[in-house]
Amino acid sequence: MQKPTLAKGTRDFGPTETANRKHLFNIIAKNFKQFGYQEIETPAMENLSTLSGKYGEEGDTLLFKILDSGDYLSSLQKSNMPIHDITSAMATPLIASKGLRYDLTVPFARYVAMNRHQLSFPFKRFQMQPVWRADRPQKGRYREFWQCDADCIGSDSLVSEADFINLFHNVFNDLHILDYQIHVNNRKILEGIAEVLEAKDKFIELTTAIDKFDKIGLEGVQNELKSKGFSNEQLLQLEYFLTCSNLNIDVINSWKEALKNSPIGLQGLDEIETLYHYLVATQNQAQVFFDGTLARGLSYYTGCIFEVKVPNSGLGSIAAGGRYDNLTGIFGLPNVSGVGISFGADRIYDLLLLRNLFPSHNALFKSVLFCPMEQEFIPFCMKEAVLFRKAGLVVSVFPTATKLKKQLDYANAINADFAVIIGSEEFKSNTLSIKNLKDGTQQTIDTTTFLNTISK
Amino acid sequence: MQKPTLAKGTRDFGPTETANRKHLFNIIAKNFKQFGYQEIETPAMENLSTLSGKYGEEGDTLLFKILDSGDYLSSLQKSNMPIHDITSAMATPLIASKGLRYDLTVPFARYVAMNRHQLSFPFKRFQMQPVWRADRPQKGRYREFWQCDADCIGSDSLVSEADFINLFHNVFNDLHILDYQIHVNNRKILEGIAEVLEAKDKFIELTTAIDKFDKIGLEGVQNELKSKGFSNEQLLQLEYFLTCSNLNIDVINSWKEALKNSPIGLQGLDEIETLYHYLVATQNQAQVFFDGTLARGLSYYTGCIFEVKVPNSGLGSIAAGGRYDNLTGIFGLPNVSGVGISFGADRIYDLLLLRNLFPSHNALFKSVLFCPMEQEFIPFCMKEAVLFRKAGLVVSVFPTATKLKKQLDYANAINADFAVIIGSEEFKSNTLSIKNLKDGTQQTIDTTTFLNTISK
Repeated sequence: MQKPTLAKGTRDFGPTETANRKHLFNIIAKNFKQFGYQEIETPAMENLSTLSGKYGEEGDTLLFKILDSGDYLSSLQKSNMPIHDITSAMATPLIASKGLRYDLTVPFARYVAMNRHQLSFPFKRFQMQPVWRADRPQKGRYREFWQCDADCIGSDSLVSEADFINLFHNVFNDLHILDYQIHVNNRKILEGIAEVLEAKDKFIELTTAIDKFDKIGLEGVQNELKSKGFSNEQLLQLEYFLTCSNLNIDVINSWKEALKNSPIGLQGLDEIETLYHYLVATQNQAQVFFDGTLARGLSYYTGCIFEVKVPNSGLGSIAAGGRYDNLTGIFGLPNVSGVGISFGADRIYDLLLLRNLFPSHNALFKSVLFCPMEQEFIPFCMKEAVLFRKAGLVVSVFPTATKLKKQLDYANAINADFAVIIGSEEFKSNTLSIKNLKDGTQQTIDTTTFLNTISK
Repeated sequence: MQKPTLAKGTRDFGPTETANRKHLFNIIAKNFKQFGYQEIETPAMENLSTLSGKYGEEGDTLLFKILDSGDYLSSLQKSNMPIHDITSAMATPLIASKGLRYDLTVPFARYVAMNRHQLSFPFKRFQMQPVWRADRPQKGRYREFWQCDADCIGSDSLVSEADFINLFHNVFNDLHILDYQIHVNNRKILEGIAEVLEAKDKFIELTTAIDKFDKIGLEGVQNELKSKGFSNEQLLQLEYFLTCSNLNIDVINSWKEALKNSPIGLQGLDEIETLYHYLVATQNQAQVFFDGTLARGLSYYTGCIFEVKVPNSGLGSIAAGGRYDNLTGIFGLPNVSGVGISFGADRIYDLLLLRNLFPSHNALFKSVLFCPMEQEFIPFCMKEAVLFRKAGLVVSVFPTATKLKKQLDYANAINADFAVIIGSEEFKSNTLSIKNLKDGTQQTIDTTTFLNTISK
């Protein structure tokens, strides 16, 4: 006998969790589709040559690597090194040539590069699949988790950015999360700030500090920058930019004034202004903030960046994204501009659970358990079950004629809406005794009448 | 620059394939749900202690094993063996403690054993997830493929078997595969045949030969058994049982006569008879055959076994299943009877494709591309797009005002139903020129009128 366990950092999803997760994924997928994104799926396993070197040095150590089949040790043995001289890092490339995907972005880039001649650009794809990271597991961080990504590549138009903001609005409305906020910034504006501060050479230090604004506040950012050699005058000047306000034309104009000496900064503000006009045209209902403190993924993003937050939820961002210029370059397809977003499925799940926003899973299809009081009534139950299923109901027949109490307990355990009790009376008169398990009422009724009531 | 490739034996699924696959999976899932099966999901990675030894010696070599993180070689080094004395088989348990799931059955058994106190029995679950096998890839056989399983465990009632036959019927009808056949047999009947042949000690040889009936025919089976020491008299007697006929009460009775000296055989026939009565009660519409040549997975199955085939498709079985007695025993929960089925998603996919049975993907939601003729019409397009999406349409705005031909080519490439062309006339008069890309017609119309037509 063996006491089974889950692999560290992984989860089972039982019936309720799975139904809840599908509810969330379906809403995201429906909206991706409505905005013209088409779904693709890529394999869990990729060649390590595709994955390695794409996520920095730390990322490489977090890749799950798959042991080659067959006699993988022979290549290690052929090297003729004494075993104590071989490090794990040296051995890995010799014994593992595949890994589990670490995100959906690199497999997508590989897919685009491989299929470039078949695809029509702009190519708008979405993808919702698990990814794996050999992180130390902790609360809310798993070694297997889902990403829900959409990207539009092959166009530098800000239509995509505006679409994504409207899409955020539709998704969170469908989920009944109404207090979300969308924060927007642009890498070029951050570069512009560095330029007017005369700190272009310290761009990384500047944005690394700004990125911590949420956690350490203005003073914290200033202290950190002071230690990196920023002057008091620079820090005073920076204060103006570390602000967050509703996106409107006045705030854009005042930033234009503040960044008037930075061509790149003004270019970023022009992009924000175009985005703003597109949002006005679509009568966008979302709360959109122009946030000078937003600085994320800047090794990767080159234009607009977004982040969606729910204030006071303690959750950090629940969706995010931005524009990039060179997703597929590494795979031989350079200069393809794109913009992408990602929903944080686990965080949104936690929020929906906390707020009790998952629907009752019988909302669409009522669920019924037939309860035979004698073994010989089972065929009758099964005959009726066929009619109930044809009417769109979810139906089980309890498979043995055990005590009613036990059958009703089971009906409640599987969250049935109705128990249909078949005793000798019902069997003889060809009727059903139907107990409504949600309100406790019971009625004797014939099948047609009941199904007519239900389907209304 | 790096020329990217897929890992051997894996596939990408592009937009059309993904939509087709979702169509198939949704139909299977819908029917599983209607029969009261609830969905669960388990992680891709399991501890190797959970997976190893469950699939025979060959299965163990086909498990994909995941290299431990960190300095995995140290345990090998600590063993102090000269590297040339270490075999890969010896090294694996020292450097890999996790593997990718090989099927959905073992993870399900682990799940049940771990959650036994929370589950209500009979527990009816379905699961549709990828599995991985380090098989040599070949046509139609992949290293990553999907399984679609449903199991009912914790009851020995034949209600489940009858449900599954009705479920097969509903699934294949929904898929418009009408020429499928369901073959049924029972392990106890095969044991009964061995008993009346006085060959109980050669049960494995007997059923191994019978299992090849499809491929090698009666004569082939007889030749194989002759070489295993079966007498001519036994082979003659066997002929009676190697037949396949419509399941009805006459055939059951004549088999009862033929197996009258085998208690276990008669028990198997009783089960088939109960199943038959349940099918009659449900007015089952499926073509069900009682097939003495059906002998599959007999190291595992203990009662009824099923297989679904499409004659002349060259495909083998497209779904299969059976009853087992000891799924969870290995994990410390003995004597749990269950019955399960599995759909062969890849084979069914191939059949649907061959027969052109996938729906046009705009069947539910019409798809629209807005084509702006000037850059300044883009906000107008985006405003209209909001209304179109509210009406349930799938909508993209072409992001730049390039030539109409290029935009229409793109509309066709993304399989749009309509192109909405916005030039200065339309912009001024607040109307839309709508080209129906399926029939080539074009009309000028206002938004409300068009959306009213469409939603009808």
